[in-house]
Amino acid sequence: MFARRLFSTSSSSLPPTIRQILASNTHSTPVQVNGWIKSIRKQAKVAFAVVTDGSSSQTLQAVFTKDALAEAKNLTNGACVRLNGTLAKSIGPGQDVELQVDKVECLGECTSEEYPIQKKSLNTDYLRDHCNFRARTDSIAAMLRLRSSTLRGLQQYFESQEFCYAHTPIITSNDSEGGGETFSVTPSAPATSSTAPAPHSDFFGRPAYLTVSSQLHLEALAASISRVYTISPCFRAERSQTSRHLSEFWMLEAEWAFTNSVEDVTRVVEGAVRSVMQAPSVDLQVLWKDMDPVRLEALRRAVESDVPWARITYTQAVEELQKHSSSFKVAAKWGDSLRSEHEQWLAERLIGGPVFVTDYPASMKPFYMRLNDDGKTVACFDLLVPHVGELAGGSLREERLELLKDALRKAGLREEEYAWYVELRKFGGAPHGGFGLGFERLIRWMSGIENVRECIAMPRWEGRMLL
Amino acid sequence: MFARRLFSTSSSSLPPTIRQILASNTHSTPVQVNGWIKSIRKQAKVAFAVVTDGSSSQTLQAVFTKDALAEAKNLTNGACVRLNGTLAKSIGPGQDVELQVDKVECLGECTSEEYPIQKKSLNTDYLRDHCNFRARTDSIAAMLRLRSSTLRGLQQYFESQEFCYAHTPIITSNDSEGGGETFSVTPSAPATSSTAPAPHSDFFGRPAYLTVSSQLHLEALAASISRVYTISPCFRAERSQTSRHLSEFWMLEAEWAFTNSVEDVTRVVEGAVRSVMQAPSVDLQVLWKDMDPVRLEALRRAVESDVPWARITYTQAVEELQKHSSSFKVAAKWGDSLRSEHEQWLAERLIGGPVFVTDYPASMKPFYMRLNDDGKTVACFDLLVPHVGELAGGSLREERLELLKDALRKAGLREEEYAWYVELRKFGGAPHGGFGLGFERLIRWMSGIENVRECIAMPRWEGRMLL
Repeated sequence: MFARRLFSTSSSSLPPTIRQILASNTHSTPVQVNGWIKSIRKQAKVAFAVVTDGSSSQTLQAVFTKDALAEAKNLTNGACVRLNGTLAKSIGPGQDVELQVDKVECLGECTSEEYPIQKKSLNTDYLRDHCNFRARTDSIAAMLRLRSSTLRGLQQYFESQEFCYAHTPIITSNDSEGGGETFSVTPSAPATSSTAPAPHSDFFGRPAYLTVSSQLHLEALAASISRVYTISPCFRAERSQTSRHLSEFWMLEAEWAFTNSVEDVTRVVEGAVRSVMQAPSVDLQVLWKDMDPVRLEALRRAVESDVPWARITYTQAVEELQKHSSSFKVAAKWGDSLRSEHEQWLAERLIGGPVFVTDYPASMKPFYMRLNDDGKTVACFDLLVPHVGELAGGSLREERLELLKDALRKAGLREEEYAWYVELRKFGGAPHGGFGLGFERLIRWMSGIENVRECIAMPRWEGRMLL
Repeated sequence: MFARRLFSTSSSSLPPTIRQILASNTHSTPVQVNGWIKSIRKQAKVAFAVVTDGSSSQTLQAVFTKDALAEAKNLTNGACVRLNGTLAKSIGPGQDVELQVDKVECLGECTSEEYPIQKKSLNTDYLRDHCNFRARTDSIAAMLRLRSSTLRGLQQYFESQEFCYAHTPIITSNDSEGGGETFSVTPSAPATSSTAPAPHSDFFGRPAYLTVSSQLHLEALAASISRVYTISPCFRAERSQTSRHLSEFWMLEAEWAFTNSVEDVTRVVEGAVRSVMQAPSVDLQVLWKDMDPVRLEALRRAVESDVPWARITYTQAVEELQKHSSSFKVAAKWGDSLRSEHEQWLAERLIGGPVFVTDYPASMKPFYMRLNDDGKTVACFDLLVPHVGELAGGSLREERLELLKDALRKAGLREEEYAWYVELRKFGGAPHGGFGLGFERLIRWMSGIENVRECIAMPRWEGRMLL
């Protein structure tokens, strides 16, 4: 329709990145390199600097001699530089090429003693306190690039499965299925109308909350366009300080119509997670260097094997746990939640890999999960993985109008509050299901990073919101 | 590293969509179709139904005869069905194939008179009130798919330019550069600690707001990994009711280091916007049917032409506006904001297409924009497009420490509040720039949709937050 003879997008005037320069692998050509000095060694007749621009985990060694050596005299760690020079075959170990510098331009000095990233190895708490600069460390930079490539991988998977990416609301009227632990949203400034000022909470005409899950909204869209997914921020005002909780986190959620079993839902989850691991990035290799070998081995086994991940029912899981009750502080009991020690044992000991635990008792799960024919369990799953615990959870959704109304009543929720959601079952309701997967937890599992706080650029938890 | 012999992701058990079925274009093969009845005509010996599953704007005609005719008797508009049958060459106009139905399964009835999407043509306000079902209309479904493909297109462009996708914080300590009109965030439930309960606002130890822009956070990341972008929700508690404002909207924002002119920044914007228009989707064609021909013609010209979009300075723009002062209610004056009528005239009359207006007076713009050598304008731009107005805005950012501190002072902002941001200039600061582009405004411009409220699945504005 539109002509093909378009403005060429390659005409953007961005200079090549260090990743591109190294990938081009051309020697003896003049090149301009922009980046930051990671470290610099100065000798009498030569200086060596390691330069990065964050475009990949690969750095470039710059060699300063003659005039350039004098110009390099004042360069320090952290300085921002533009270097003109020639790429040449490197004689040093660990790199193919190096930059023989002709001209040095210091774009931004870094002479202060206060520069927070002076040393190579800095502890986690210190870096959390210097959140505005911690992406200058190898591991945080690698994590950020891993998030980007993982996001792309997940999107490619869902596109290949004909899903439509949907932006669901962040501000909602929905108070977390009655679960509490939500954030409220009000305008900072009061209304300035000349009539009596309305209370702040009335900006939207009703109380407003930050979303805890996009699921219900995605269900509405799946009732029209069949397959939808999103990677959305979610919020929980939890006052817990663990290695797997954040007040603001990102969740992959997908919902689709015309699915008939939990097995179907788990296959999509497994397909999505495996697909992002198919071609491990350089960044992952960098992060694996610090990974506990036992965890890395378990990760490899999980992803390399052709064998589909294990599926066991909650009831089977409880039976197994009871056979080994001496291993636990608290014995498992049918109808109770699985404790952390139980989940760990199931994934790490019983299965030795990822495991979908399915068909939990209805009483333990939210109202929207589809009741099984036994009348006491629901068609749902939790995906447990070694060393991380719960990575994803999902279910068939109750599409039968009367059963959904029953479930709302049993959960003590008012049907009027969920009128728009109940309506989805009245007017051409489809059998459907879906799941949610914690994005930071996936990054943690893939990379071996110890805490989800290092799996996001600028983490928020109770008492902590820098920047 | 990992073995290639992976679990095949194609083993996901999702049935084919109608888009896939139509694209496969195979005749005489048995097929199962899942979807919703858009319309149905019943005659004595045959019935015809139009079936959609939202996977594309193409629908499938189903033909019921013999046994299937009896089974189709109770089908109504909006019913959810599973049809087994055979694809055959269609003799009717407007489609290549039709489904000759053998077996009908009604998955979800839609017999109620209350079904909101009974009629073909429904007005905009009515559909806003029935937000949970409005994606069953052709235009809203096409808009949702257009959002998804536009998102993908933008991401492909920025990946090709070596940008890293970053998730920036939604909850921030930053009160909109002092501009007000933000939302505050507090936990819904008070702290339950046994000591004296802290005020709600102290969940994070300081007041918390919803982000109005990811820019400052992206600048911090660009100071480490050079090129970053995001497509993030943003929030403004504006009490305005226009066709281009939402309380919750999505913004594409990009920041990158080592850029030296506003021209550089505008080239990236132009490249990104043009790239998503290179292959107009079927959905766009559907939406164009309702588009004002004058707008469509202007859009075509803007995108088909090889000629880069116009650039004029604010000062030139004011001169042009003053030459034609009789055309305006209020005359343009150097130092004043351009009014809506001025912006319209510039894009629609003076240029007749998109125009970057650059180098506005510093006094009109936020503190972070880079001061030009003239000492009174800043290195910035607004992108104005015909019929929509401002689509994007950006600038070089002030990287010179002392000038940034001056600008903060002049803006009446406290340096301590921005300490982490100012620091980015102290420790290896890079020359850098970036921009923000309203995602709903882009959708509106591309599609000709009248109001941004129809450019997002579930819009929020003052007094309106359904679902």
